[in-house]
Amino acid sequence: MNDSSYIPVDGGVCAPQGFLGSAVSCGIKKPTATRLDLALIYSTEPCVSAGTFTTNRVQAACVKVSREHLRKGNIRAIVANSGNANACTGTRGVEDARGECRSVAELLGLEPAEVAVCSTGVIGLPMPMMRIYPKFPELAEGLSRDKGHEVAQAVMTSDTKEKIIAIEFVVQGKPVRIGACCKGAGMINPCMATMLCFITTDAGVSRDVLELCVQSGVKSSFNCITIDGDMSTNDTVLVMANGASGVKLETPEDIYAFQQALAHVMLELAKHIVQDGERVTKFVTVHVTGGRTEDEAKKAAEAVAKSSLVKSSWNGNDPNWGRIIHAVGYCGAKVDEEKIDIDIAGLAACRGGVQADTPSDDLRQAVQVPAFQVDINLNRGEFSHTVYTTDLSPEYVDFNRSEYAYWNQAKADGLTC
Amino acid sequence: MNDSSYIPVDGGVCAPQGFLGSAVSCGIKKPTATRLDLALIYSTEPCVSAGTFTTNRVQAACVKVSREHLRKGNIRAIVANSGNANACTGTRGVEDARGECRSVAELLGLEPAEVAVCSTGVIGLPMPMMRIYPKFPELAEGLSRDKGHEVAQAVMTSDTKEKIIAIEFVVQGKPVRIGACCKGAGMINPCMATMLCFITTDAGVSRDVLELCVQSGVKSSFNCITIDGDMSTNDTVLVMANGASGVKLETPEDIYAFQQALAHVMLELAKHIVQDGERVTKFVTVHVTGGRTEDEAKKAAEAVAKSSLVKSSWNGNDPNWGRIIHAVGYCGAKVDEEKIDIDIAGLAACRGGVQADTPSDDLRQAVQVPAFQVDINLNRGEFSHTVYTTDLSPEYVDFNRSEYAYWNQAKADGLTC
Repeated sequence: MNDSSYIPVDGGVCAPQGFLGSAVSCGIKKPTATRLDLALIYSTEPCVSAGTFTTNRVQAACVKVSREHLRKGNIRAIVANSGNANACTGTRGVEDARGECRSVAELLGLEPAEVAVCSTGVIGLPMPMMRIYPKFPELAEGLSRDKGHEVAQAVMTSDTKEKIIAIEFVVQGKPVRIGACCKGAGMINPCMATMLCFITTDAGVSRDVLELCVQSGVKSSFNCITIDGDMSTNDTVLVMANGASGVKLETPEDIYAFQQALAHVMLELAKHIVQDGERVTKFVTVHVTGGRTEDEAKKAAEAVAKSSLVKSSWNGNDPNWGRIIHAVGYCGAKVDEEKIDIDIAGLAACRGGVQADTPSDDLRQAVQVPAFQVDINLNRGEFSHTVYTTDLSPEYVDFNRSEYAYWNQAKADGLTC
Repeated sequence: MNDSSYIPVDGGVCAPQGFLGSAVSCGIKKPTATRLDLALIYSTEPCVSAGTFTTNRVQAACVKVSREHLRKGNIRAIVANSGNANACTGTRGVEDARGECRSVAELLGLEPAEVAVCSTGVIGLPMPMMRIYPKFPELAEGLSRDKGHEVAQAVMTSDTKEKIIAIEFVVQGKPVRIGACCKGAGMINPCMATMLCFITTDAGVSRDVLELCVQSGVKSSFNCITIDGDMSTNDTVLVMANGASGVKLETPEDIYAFQQALAHVMLELAKHIVQDGERVTKFVTVHVTGGRTEDEAKKAAEAVAKSSLVKSSWNGNDPNWGRIIHAVGYCGAKVDEEKIDIDIAGLAACRGGVQADTPSDDLRQAVQVPAFQVDINLNRGEFSHTVYTTDLSPEYVDFNRSEYAYWNQAKADGLTC
């Protein structure tokens, strides 16, 4: 199966059979705001589910609660909000997260442990539950199959674009669908991005297989992107499989086909996140080959993809291979300077650690585009690694200078002093 | 001995007895420029010397050559230029670096291996030796005791201020002096900064002791600063001790006094570098206590000091402790979220992983200053670590967007295509 076997379909998380979505506006960040900020995804059938969470030692209350629910069994509903991360909020935050699951479970006739909860937004302020609780009935009543887009919009923070995908492919002669949405634009770094990702599928699959597919998919997608090198407290990927397509994945071939399709969905979303990075002007693929180990290739790719100086030069359309090789040099792997080759946008920039004979004007011309690839060959072995990254713009810094608005509102809400 | 025992004196590297300096203008970056860009430091007496170099696997030609000379014996002259780093320049770069040492040695009646060579500037372009070689006679003839400032100025790149220090202190009833200068403003990161540092002293000291003092001094100074997280290819610290004061350091007390004085000089210069960081508006001391190990405290301090999001918020006068704790969380150490306390500018911002009860207006007011301290207590043990860092400004990114000027000149010089 290759990419062309996947038929794009509309509807995001509601595209697979048996999944409903809903979204409402609570004014979580600001009471007068009317944008959607609370979403619900629900499967009409019982689900097998799997997930993966941030490895940050500081974990949001919702991450703690959702992780616990997944450990207990399978979820079949996800409630998610933007505007507040419910992180560093102590026991109060955990109570709030549990309260959300309880409210949703009651309205849908589920056990609280069948509901996962996700939050994204500012860290360190309690959730304004007085504006969230009253909205749950409207949220549950609004569930329908045509709200995949609204669900995606409700979890956006600094995202400028809704990030949604759904594909259909054929297994055992029958159509199977995977639908998904995600959010993330800042605090984006391998393991994982600052991001929430919800994936639904009407394939029937065992928990073991689903967990394996999620792990392998995340490794080659969300763990391969970086915007600003900052790893969030809230990163979450949740997958629910309800079997409503009537297709049960049992043979190795079918499982492999599903695994590939899930990885495809994840990689597409991961690229969408990088392309929508905060105040980003370039999408850069850093492809390192010739590593003696995978770790070596990975270290080199990540050092380049995260270097402020390299990223600043991309912002200025400067094909500065000197800064790229200097980042490779400090990556922590034992690279050999005199073996390093670097191509930028398909042109030789460096050969054996010194400048190649490509005219500098040609190199400069080649990076005057919104997306290009940097190929680095360490010439030490057979391992490779790819990281998707961006430039660093003055506007990124300006955009991230202050979160006063959150604090001012929290003060008005009596949630901080 | 404490800081007040050190009497500040003028003259930088020429302040200790028996050291001469000189600087000339070669137009290394641009032939028409008149700024000083080539410096020479020379001891009229034989020296004991020690040094430490970048740990970047990509090392400038001058680093390779100077390291070799130090391995062979002791140096007693240093030739240094700004405008070109002589890095990633292959065998040609090594020949150029050797050529510089040879030229200087001939003029001063030394062996080439008694000369160290240092360069700072753009990476990847050959040195314009046709403009450097002709200037050596003028450089050697100009040697005098009153050129400590000119030497410091000649190695400046994006530095806005000359970085120079000299102190006098008493050992065995006699005055001993340490003089120094350094450069560095971008590519600044622990292990070490992108920087050159030259230190002279008229103390008499054995090579073993001097090496030990340099290692310990660098560990608590230049390896504790970060501006942009980028580690350079050229970092070098060189120390020459000529014994001209008549004081020979032999007792443990005298050696300790010298070690402390050298560490003081290094820490002052390291702070100067951070304060002069490219387009920086804040000088922030990140002090982590309560680590179970030193490594734990160091990881936490460095993660905070290097986080783009934390640094952006400082630029906006936002005392955003949520971003600080999130960086502590991903630092790689096994911290306990619910034990973390954070003080910003002396005010409690976070206690036990949740917000403290300091009014947010007070916190905001407290960071509206050019320098403040962030205290993070992990409450897990007895180890601590301090990192000196800066904010990240939109102007930093803008400043680093392109190095076209270097490439355009190199093209005119026939050094690139």
